[in-house]
Amino acid sequence: MSQVNHWIAGINAVSAAIAHDAEHVREVLLESGSRNPRIGDIETAARQAGLEVRRVSQQALEGIAGGLRHQGAAARYAAAKTLDERDLPGLVDAAEGRALLLVLDGVQDPHNLGACLRSAAAAGATAVIIPKDKAVQVNATVRKTSAGAADRIPVVRVTNLARSLRELQQAGVWLYGLAGEAKATLHATDLRGNVALVLGGEGDGLRRLTREACDQLLTIPMPGADASGGVESLNVSVAAGVALFEAVRQRAAG
Amino acid sequence: MSQVNHWIAGINAVSAAIAHDAEHVREVLLESGSRNPRIGDIETAARQAGLEVRRVSQQALEGIAGGLRHQGAAARYAAAKTLDERDLPGLVDAAEGRALLLVLDGVQDPHNLGACLRSAAAAGATAVIIPKDKAVQVNATVRKTSAGAADRIPVVRVTNLARSLRELQQAGVWLYGLAGEAKATLHATDLRGNVALVLGGEGDGLRRLTREACDQLLTIPMPGADASGGVESLNVSVAAGVALFEAVRQRAAG
Repeated sequence: MSQVNHWIAGINAVSAAIAHDAEHVREVLLESGSRNPRIGDIETAARQAGLEVRRVSQQALEGIAGGLRHQGAAARYAAAKTLDERDLPGLVDAAEGRALLLVLDGVQDPHNLGACLRSAAAAGATAVIIPKDKAVQVNATVRKTSAGAADRIPVVRVTNLARSLRELQQAGVWLYGLAGEAKATLHATDLRGNVALVLGGEGDGLRRLTREACDQLLTIPMPGADASGGVESLNVSVAAGVALFEAVRQRAAG
Repeated sequence: MSQVNHWIAGINAVSAAIAHDAEHVREVLLESGSRNPRIGDIETAARQAGLEVRRVSQQALEGIAGGLRHQGAAARYAAAKTLDERDLPGLVDAAEGRALLLVLDGVQDPHNLGACLRSAAAAGATAVIIPKDKAVQVNATVRKTSAGAADRIPVVRVTNLARSLRELQQAGVWLYGLAGEAKATLHATDLRGNVALVLGGEGDGLRRLTREACDQLLTIPMPGADASGGVESLNVSVAAGVALFEAVRQRAAG
């Protein structure tokens, strides 16, 4: 996922990053057992800046530095750039007909967004798309709940979700909205091509314009709803996980 | 789910419950679009008592009332009794060869337990089993996060989880533990009979005794793990949802 992750290596580069750009540094890796006092200085500065510091083996650093001279220090940077709607066609193209997009329309709870990013990264999704307005953004809580996935999965922030969905459609992506009242089921639907799974927020589900932009609405079958008069539903991050891993299942089956 | 849930219906019954027994009322359901002023009175009284009020369709109320005259109002009561290991054989028997149990070994976060209960209720699971010790219990946060499911799904609290798992095995339940390092995959495994899905807590996964009690370990395939050097994993409530709804898919397929 080189689009969204970035390592720097070397004592000077890492020191400068901590001094001048700590907000974009996600963690600092230092060689365990190093007796170089400048490595100790970096550790002190990193901790003062509130950064995570890990001691790792020389081999681990060499793997990360990939040919760069690391001198016992490396730092992982946040996404070098923020992705927006202009990046979507390229992401879809690069997926070569197997794009798997997760679209979240108005998720408010940072724990839910974090869990969604974690699931999307684990499912090998192409990207997660969120609106710039009226939805939680990738903040510190999201990052933490995502268990690091916030830096491993491209997150695309779009200004006008309905318009971005139409552009995805034109790029050959099939848009499936998850909605409890749909007739078609997730499990009986082919999720193997270029697919976007579109979910609403915690409260009201899909907004009208989002729903209308979808090619088809799908429901997750809930046998428990019969017993309880139809009042069952799922947490949005659980629903996203169920949908993503149904796509994974179908894609592995061929 | 009559062991743990209890609905009352009708304007007088619901009014009396709110007036005299609000602490045991979990939610109040009112018919959307009703113009009966007494329904409005019930809504006001319920909100003043701090109860959740939902407007639902007439059909939903009829499903819940199950033949009772609801007059546009129903209320859900809290669980009458707490279940323990002695209740397990009866629950498995009543499921007639299609028991679906969710076993959570040491979940600590109430939001995760709440989301698991919600998923289990939606999936029509037989029960959720949790240990009495070293795990979060069904508290107010769990209840709230579960969106009412904490009262709709039997929660069985057991003293010794490994022993209860052996008793389930003797009762003809197949125990599948979810573990990232397993060779067999969730999707390639038959989940249609009497099945218990066993998940570990947020930090360490399955404990040794729990893992050893399982008949088989299963993994949820994570294509994203190849791209990120194998560091991917799922939130426990997402993993539980993915496993439960894979069982739902297989059972619907026959």
